[in-house]
Amino acid sequence: MKEPDFKTVAIVGFGLMGGSMALALLEQRPHLAVIGVDRDAAARANADRRGIDTKADLGAVEAADIVVLATPVRSILEQLPAVGERAKEGALIIDLGSTKRDIVHEMDKLPQRVHPIGGHPMCGKELAGFQAAEAGLYRDTVFVLTPLARTTQQTVDRAKAFVGLLGARPIILDADAHDRAVAAVSHLPFTLAATLVNLTTEMSGSESTMFSLAAGGFRDTSRLAASDTRMMLDTLLTNRDNVADMLRAFSRELNRLADSVAAGDERALELFLDRAGKRRREMFK
Amino acid sequence: MKEPDFKTVAIVGFGLMGGSMALALLEQRPHLAVIGVDRDAAARANADRRGIDTKADLGAVEAADIVVLATPVRSILEQLPAVGERAKEGALIIDLGSTKRDIVHEMDKLPQRVHPIGGHPMCGKELAGFQAAEAGLYRDTVFVLTPLARTTQQTVDRAKAFVGLLGARPIILDADAHDRAVAAVSHLPFTLAATLVNLTTEMSGSESTMFSLAAGGFRDTSRLAASDTRMMLDTLLTNRDNVADMLRAFSRELNRLADSVAAGDERALELFLDRAGKRRREMFK
Repeated sequence: MKEPDFKTVAIVGFGLMGGSMALALLEQRPHLAVIGVDRDAAARANADRRGIDTKADLGAVEAADIVVLATPVRSILEQLPAVGERAKEGALIIDLGSTKRDIVHEMDKLPQRVHPIGGHPMCGKELAGFQAAEAGLYRDTVFVLTPLARTTQQTVDRAKAFVGLLGARPIILDADAHDRAVAAVSHLPFTLAATLVNLTTEMSGSESTMFSLAAGGFRDTSRLAASDTRMMLDTLLTNRDNVADMLRAFSRELNRLADSVAAGDERALELFLDRAGKRRREMFK
Repeated sequence: MKEPDFKTVAIVGFGLMGGSMALALLEQRPHLAVIGVDRDAAARANADRRGIDTKADLGAVEAADIVVLATPVRSILEQLPAVGERAKEGALIIDLGSTKRDIVHEMDKLPQRVHPIGGHPMCGKELAGFQAAEAGLYRDTVFVLTPLARTTQQTVDRAKAFVGLLGARPIILDADAHDRAVAAVSHLPFTLAATLVNLTTEMSGSESTMFSLAAGGFRDTSRLAASDTRMMLDTLLTNRDNVADMLRAFSRELNRLADSVAAGDERALELFLDRAGKRRREMFK
């Protein structure tokens, strides 16, 4: 890979995602200047111990060729105007937010001297904070880029090269299509997991043995419920129409399935289970 | 552990669960006579290659001190009368079926000379057949025992010792409580996974990129959809009331959640996500 055309990267929000990005960048390009920006002193202390330069103040983005916003979605929306004021001529502004419509809308208001593009890496884990960061988090995963109308091909190419440096595979998508897709394959699974945990907990009230019967199936299906609350709250609240549509469609499907089960409709059930089984096995070989 | 008071074990149905049990027993007690009974020639051939004695005919249970029924629930219900006719005086009859009410009801009709008890190991995986069997499948997992009114303490103790030999932890539960609990922690997660796969597949019709955005969260939440169709069909059809109740309760919860999301009710959403996150993190530390 040719040397990147940037020397300084500022990452705003130095938790799991931002911290892992810094570690990945420094592993690939040890001489890159990576600055972690976080208001939280504990987050900064953790990063300092790993030898990463950190700042408390957003002013640190002034020096950066690339500014990465790695906070929850609504924080990104709040930070964008200040980043636009401070970022230098020609800087690439990218974010890692889980929804993209509101963000690209806000990015469109940035001064013309900076070059914004939306970003969403399809990776993560159920541990928050820099202490959970790892250089390999982005490796071999998909990183969605959502260009704005004003985004030039040159900016797209720079963003792709940056994503490639992390070991991720860039996919170009418009913000609307992105938000619809993640409502189905990410926000829906998350809300199902959270609902599964809350509903079974309510029901187990008098039956303490219920959870001693929970095996690997329950563990996997409920895993996403342990995701970072603040991040997921921002995600759902900035994708309300798509998420509500998915939840209602799922709810209708479950009622239909309940009818088939209650009626003992073997043929309908068999078709349903067979279709899901075949599809799932072919999805993840 | 003292030597078991049984010399011959017949396992009827020699797939993943029955085969893994045979491997576990022979690993612990190489001199035990373990007979795998399966009508399917391919299943027998796989077991024969691993040096396990197999028979095609149910008559093979005549020699057994312990008869284990390891087929799907409705096959167990069909096989029980014939097993009762053929099993010898004093034989322990146990099964591995995923639901227990219908089975203990049918077991109650067995002749008094045999000793039935229901069983359900809380383990498995999304691969079926003897070729997926492994000696460690039962190790450190919960094995539910559901005694009948006629089951003596001596029979319970024998069943516990047998379960202990597999490395599993026995839990005594009545069949009604078992079927209610597994509807919540096992059958519900399974139906959620299957519905997630089917609904997102339908929706992705025109948007082929949707699944390229599916990451680890989707993979884990949908994993159970790949379970064995025949086994799950029997399971749902013999637990219809409990499963339909759970699906309807879940469907109502999702509608409530959709309302909170659509209305942007931040306080309600935050409470919901926070409760689920805390509970999930404390469940699986």
